[in-house]
Amino acid sequence: LRLALVGCGLVGGSFALALREAGAIASVIGCDADPQAAARAVACGIADETGPLGAIVAHADVVVIAVPVRAIPETIGQVAAAARRGTLVTDVGSTKGEIVRAGDRAGGIRFVGAHPLAGTERSGPDAADARLFRGRKVLLTPTARTDAAARDEVARLWQAAGARVAELDADEHDRRLAAVSHLPHVVAYALAGALETSVPELAGLAGGGFTDTTRIASTPPSMWLDVFVENREAVLAWVDAYLAEMAIWREAIAAGDVTKMRERIAAARAARAGILGA
Amino acid sequence: LRLALVGCGLVGGSFALALREAGAIASVIGCDADPQAAARAVACGIADETGPLGAIVAHADVVVIAVPVRAIPETIGQVAAAARRGTLVTDVGSTKGEIVRAGDRAGGIRFVGAHPLAGTERSGPDAADARLFRGRKVLLTPTARTDAAARDEVARLWQAAGARVAELDADEHDRRLAAVSHLPHVVAYALAGALETSVPELAGLAGGGFTDTTRIASTPPSMWLDVFVENREAVLAWVDAYLAEMAIWREAIAAGDVTKMRERIAAARAARAGILGA
Repeated sequence: LRLALVGCGLVGGSFALALREAGAIASVIGCDADPQAAARAVACGIADETGPLGAIVAHADVVVIAVPVRAIPETIGQVAAAARRGTLVTDVGSTKGEIVRAGDRAGGIRFVGAHPLAGTERSGPDAADARLFRGRKVLLTPTARTDAAARDEVARLWQAAGARVAELDADEHDRRLAAVSHLPHVVAYALAGALETSVPELAGLAGGGFTDTTRIASTPPSMWLDVFVENREAVLAWVDAYLAEMAIWREAIAAGDVTKMRERIAAARAARAGILGA
Repeated sequence: LRLALVGCGLVGGSFALALREAGAIASVIGCDADPQAAARAVACGIADETGPLGAIVAHADVVVIAVPVRAIPETIGQVAAAARRGTLVTDVGSTKGEIVRAGDRAGGIRFVGAHPLAGTERSGPDAADARLFRGRKVLLTPTARTDAAARDEVARLWQAAGARVAELDADEHDRRLAAVSHLPHVVAYALAGALETSVPELAGLAGGGFTDTTRIASTPPSMWLDVFVENREAVLAWVDAYLAEMAIWREAIAAGDVTKMRERIAAARAARAGILGA
């Protein structure tokens, strides 16, 4: 298989590295809006060579779109215009509704939406790691128009990269990921941001709690701005559910209501264990 | 030095193990309100033997109080009543204002308040680890009445356990730790708790972001209930600062205000880096 990688950052780069290591693909041609990132992708062994999007897509058997979420629908159109008929095209975006609708609209390609539940606070081709997806879940979001064989091929590629494959409706994906991924980012950004003016007096006093709770607040903004805009309604609904819970906490602390706090702590521990499958 | 350990949980047990490993103490006699925990402390090598508080304190050179925060002031009084005159007494509580005032009130002992900035979501003697404090900061909170030689002795013990020692006024400690430790716990509990009724549909979908952001929400409630009650006013002030930042976020997401979101993400990243000293 000849793979065209559109976007050579952490996730796309790691997928290409994992597929090469597994022997699942014969070659990788990459492109990136940032010429330095494209050059680094070759230097890091992610891509054999680079070229303009139209050219690299025209000769590919599989196209992986790993650009920021909001650019994916338009990129799908560009890929469809340049690819041979029937080319398998997939993506790695963190939201899926608009993307699978763009895939359904695009003619001539076989599109399958996918979202690997893996990432780090780092970014760029130099952070790519062939082991990033090992044991992690990848959600495929086929629609009624998705080609079943294409879906199976994408599933096999992710399995070759070490991931566990599951399926979910795209809009349901966006609603649920808003709870377990997008909301935690808002919470972490707000927690670190709320301490902005107190940094001098707080420097050096943080233990593991603050460090872990805000780890994802060190993620660069580009990816999450896209997600917050793209998935606005679902994120807002969970933000409001969260603010309702914070209001319960504020009242319990103000009242010294140990019974209520104990009840909410028990609920939090049970919910966390249930969501993590512990 | 003969050490009496009042409370044989994670933090006290780890301190005793570290001091034994460093050769800084000759023996440890422990006590715990939970007889099973006391027995486990001997089984885990934390204490050589156990006994009732009055008896173990009477023969000690150093008494370490490692019981839940709200029990510490009363425990200081009990220790002072049983200890020989001039006995060095210190604690490991997460709040300090009420505790150092109790230490100042207690007659006959030399009390020094201390708070090691280390811990895990685990608890109990079986979780104790001699390396828990290596490279971590310990805040001593001496008052105007604290004996200087006693303060230096406690500093040396923590250094022997591998920690870096700093000093801070007790009330200032409580105000600052409310920001970098107590607030993150409220946020993490509220984040996991807000998802309580959606666990079935969210199970297995969480990646590293949710896992890390809510890690401290798996901490057992006993310790944090005490902190939230004891340090109520400081915690509430930071909760309100945080809710103001969340309101900015909610408005920016609702409006699709990418400029504002980018600004708050930059503020969050800078604040986090400044607080962690990166």
